[in-house]
Amino acid sequence: MLKYELGCELNYNIGEPSTLIFNIGVVSNEYQTIVQEDLHCEAAQIEEYITPIDRNRYLRINAPAGNLNISYRSIVELTHDYSDPSQIIEVDPAHLPLDVLHYLYPSRYCQSDRLFRLAEAEFGNLYPGYSRVTAICNWIYHNISYLSGSSDSGTSAGDTAIERVGVCRDFAHLGIAFCRALNIPARFVSGYAYGLNPPDFHAWFEAYLGDRWYLFDPTRLSPQNGLVRVGTGRDAADVSFATIFGAVQMTQMKLVMNHITAGAETSDRILIPTIEAIATA
Amino acid sequence: MLKYELGCELNYNIGEPSTLIFNIGVVSNEYQTIVQEDLHCEAAQIEEYITPIDRNRYLRINAPAGNLNISYRSIVELTHDYSDPSQIIEVDPAHLPLDVLHYLYPSRYCQSDRLFRLAEAEFGNLYPGYSRVTAICNWIYHNISYLSGSSDSGTSAGDTAIERVGVCRDFAHLGIAFCRALNIPARFVSGYAYGLNPPDFHAWFEAYLGDRWYLFDPTRLSPQNGLVRVGTGRDAADVSFATIFGAVQMTQMKLVMNHITAGAETSDRILIPTIEAIATA
Amino acid sequence: MLKYELGCELNYNIGEPSTLIFNIGVVSNEYQTIVQEDLHCEAAQIEEYITPIDRNRYLRINAPAGNLNISYRSIVELTHDYSDPSQIIEVDPAHLPLDVLHYLYPSRYCQSDRLFRLAEAEFGNLYPGYSRVTAICNWIYHNISYLSGSSDSGTSAGDTAIERVGVCRDFAHLGIAFCRALNIPARFVSGYAYGLNPPDFHAWFEAYLGDRWYLFDPTRLSPQNGLVRVGTGRDAADVSFATIFGAVQMTQMKLVMNHITAGAETSDRILIPTIEAIATA
Amino acid sequence: MLKYELGCELNYNIGEPSTLIFNIGVVSNEYQTIVQEDLHCEAAQIEEYITPIDRNRYLRINAPAGNLNISYRSIVELTHDYSDPSQIIEVDPAHLPLDVLHYLYPSRYCQSDRLFRLAEAEFGNLYPGYSRVTAICNWIYHNISYLSGSSDSGTSAGDTAIERVGVCRDFAHLGIAFCRALNIPARFVSGYAYGLNPPDFHAWFEAYLGDRWYLFDPTRLSPQNGLVRVGTGRDAADVSFATIFGAVQMTQMKLVMNHITAGAETSDRILIPTIEAIATA
Repeated sequence: MLKYELGCELNYNIGEPSTLIFNIGVVSNEYQTIVQEDLHCEAAQIEEYITPIDRNRYLRINAPAGNLNISYRSIVELTHDYSDPSQIIEVDPAHLPLDVLHYLYPSRYCQSDRLFRLAEAEFGNLYPGYSRVTAICNWIYHNISYLSGSSDSGTSAGDTAIERVGVCRDFAHLGIAFCRALNIPARFVSGYAYGLNPPDFHAWFEAYLGDRWYLFDPTRLSPQNGLVRVGTGRDAADVSFATIFGAVQMTQMKLVMNHITAGAETSDRILIPTIEAIATA
Repeated sequence: MLKYELGCELNYNIGEPSTLIFNIGVVSNEYQTIVQEDLHCEAAQIEEYITPIDRNRYLRINAPAGNLNISYRSIVELTHDYSDPSQIIEVDPAHLPLDVLHYLYPSRYCQSDRLFRLAEAEFGNLYPGYSRVTAICNWIYHNISYLSGSSDSGTSAGDTAIERVGVCRDFAHLGIAFCRALNIPARFVSGYAYGLNPPDFHAWFEAYLGDRWYLFDPTRLSPQNGLVRVGTGRDAADVSFATIFGAVQMTQMKLVMNHITAGAETSDRILIPTIEAIATA
Repeated sequence: MLKYELGCELNYNIGEPSTLIFNIGVVSNEYQTIVQEDLHCEAAQIEEYITPIDRNRYLRINAPAGNLNISYRSIVELTHDYSDPSQIIEVDPAHLPLDVLHYLYPSRYCQSDRLFRLAEAEFGNLYPGYSRVTAICNWIYHNISYLSGSSDSGTSAGDTAIERVGVCRDFAHLGIAFCRALNIPARFVSGYAYGLNPPDFHAWFEAYLGDRWYLFDPTRLSPQNGLVRVGTGRDAADVSFATIFGAVQMTQMKLVMNHITAGAETSDRILIPTIEAIATA
Repeated sequence: MLKYELGCELNYNIGEPSTLIFNIGVVSNEYQTIVQEDLHCEAAQIEEYITPIDRNRYLRINAPAGNLNISYRSIVELTHDYSDPSQIIEVDPAHLPLDVLHYLYPSRYCQSDRLFRLAEAEFGNLYPGYSRVTAICNWIYHNISYLSGSSDSGTSAGDTAIERVGVCRDFAHLGIAFCRALNIPARFVSGYAYGLNPPDFHAWFEAYLGDRWYLFDPTRLSPQNGLVRVGTGRDAADVSFATIFGAVQMTQMKLVMNHITAGAETSDRILIPTIEAIATA
């Protein structure tokens, strides 16, 4: 069990009455326990909607003109199921759970239908299983340059496969697209990540292997057990941390994330990236 | 109430044991009652999965090498809520139901994020409401040529907006993208359509207006109350009528759809396209 | 005859020995007379290449590490052939000069092959001739927002047709693509433009009508007889004002352009945009 | 010296008076001598235009409604400069001939600007020279599947880099794009190729190395000294074998190409692909 204190402060300049949808609150599920949580916003009206399956938490704020300050703090306990990567197999479409199948389909930013041959050429001959998805992550890490500002909200996995440069969301999109092209269900996760410098929202992905979802982060920027889930979706289009309807300018964004040590427990260690397979969902 | 008898026969040549996912069965909901239904397939193994919210029915067939013949027949009764278009309003993001909001986001084939200015220029000044979505459909009908074979599985709303040619799914994708660009939630519907010549699977779209979904078909190929819902999704990626994993060749596809007259009831009329607003979901 | 004094100052920080190709010198032809010209650059090595047909002037500078300052000044006299737009016809591919035909073909930024139907729908029924190209320019002016920084070096006419925003080069590319889609030869021109605020390099296009090239500027940012030709090409890929091979940072760019009045001559007037047809090549 | 007899027969159904531009005649230059040539077409009007630098031969035929039959036959003698690949160097932009520089720029089908990092990653560390372009060809041969009908007139090098499938023109476009991304001038060549089965028009590319152009064919479908030049351009947009303005249907296309043996001369051998460097232009 690991405990983190995390949060964000977001300031906006609102030009006219506007609607903002936030996806910044950590998900509560059997792997993530919210010990304490505080959302502070002086806006008149806040509504929360939690999606029935993924439990994404969407906050809608209808804000008047002026300044809008949102402050979110949470203390979260994470539980991880560590598994032996060599025991984790792929499941073919004939035997996948039917409610997972739609994570095989292409989405806005993950055009797996166009990447079929590339995926087949690079990973088609590898032994199916957890190690093959690790190979995808290694390929991305070695072949795509991580460069802030190199992509924008229109950049998709197809672009990244050609241009070979991107940020965390592009890395995740390409990982997802490769997995789907190989008939491995894959989905996008946004959240908080321990150790990012500078602190920022992060994105990674999950692949469905054996009978559950395993997390993968091809950026290697954070330990795998330092990732805290906020949003789960088919790609970034589903879980943007902020979707804005109106004339709104962001004026500041600050994130914090600290590890809360609980003594000398052996379970209380933060992993170096990519050592063990972790299921968190 | 209208009653239709419909169905399809699909024949495949299977080169090696393969998995096929079909989305060909009509949805059962308060607007569609399945009076009788028959699915015939000699393959050893069929499973059905019905999605919890949209009630899409996915059939998985794990087929051995050889011929695969699928035959589906259904008698369906449709109920329609006819409304006065002039009373149907748009709802802004500040007041939309939170579980509808994700139909505002771009998807694989509907890159509403790229079409914002075009949508704004063409439809931004129109009076918000049902009539504005009708204007979108009219624009598509008049500006996009319907031409069989002019697009493929990679064609998206962005392509169609440039190339000005497509088939029913392209028409639907463009309608969806325009709606989302104007902050109107929109989704894709696949199904059976009365009067198509030659008979084929059809696609149209729905926009969320007032407090429900209204259907729109910019192709004008079928009366609006001749549309029978099979799949509902964000775009065609969600509801392909057949998704195939393996070396499979389609050898034949036949569709039928007949109107079953029930006497002289006045409610038993088939609409000319686009006269009244219809909610079916 | 109009006389302009113009020029630019470009400063670069060169990280390692690099090669820079400039296309900043005004073309000398029967419509443009260079009265005086001065190029100042302390770099050891400058070569000039003038293309045989279009007379584009490419300067190659092989610069050592350090600062590179280039200063260009020119006094140019422009002669214009003003024609009555109503007398200027289109020439069909059957009768176009054979050496002009390749300006009908698509190029990197002007995918006329994808814009055929859009061009046909918007302009296909218009009377062929100068007025039809004017209609194209008007369409661009009214349908595309001019917004600095809204596009980049990858943006093409197809993107602009969807996204409806761009700068002068995007306006020119779209004009060219529409013309070619209608079988009107069209080409890209870069140069200096009188009256731009702030001063900058400009881009416009030319269409081949009757027996010569006529200039068109859909941005309406400069009078047509305030345009001074630097580069002529199929699109911006041919006539970038600077192409850089190496680790080079631009530190400053300044342009000037002044009208030199020559007394009370009636011919010495600067046109308001788009009043008369001008051939300058 | 090698001697080939080659030609084509093209039949069209012309719906209305139309203009057709053909680029099917072999180029006459110091490496290609036309010993005999015959063009047969009953159309009333044929004009030929030969471009000043590349000597491409464009035939314009203004055809009335009805059938159009074109028959072209030629006997060509090819001379080849065989060189030792290990002696052929790359020339950096600082020292390239200035009239070759524009073959470094991106074009419609060869977006070298988007492929910079991929080219750098795959070939950036290789020893510059003929062998590096050979490595590019080998990469294409091994990574791109040759599949008839897998691409169309809109397919570009960017698409091929993602989708990993194409035909000869796609192979050439990708080779060109990689070369340009590495600052190696490269251009497209269309022509006749010995040994194709079935016979068809072919496409390959040339790279500028040392002080001349060397030919490369990543498809390995024909011996390098079995390639006869028809068109030279920046990409396929420049040298389409037929460009058609009007309602025209191709009804038949037949090509022939035979080797004319001239006795026991040792120089009269047809190469196995890619053994020696050949300059032909």
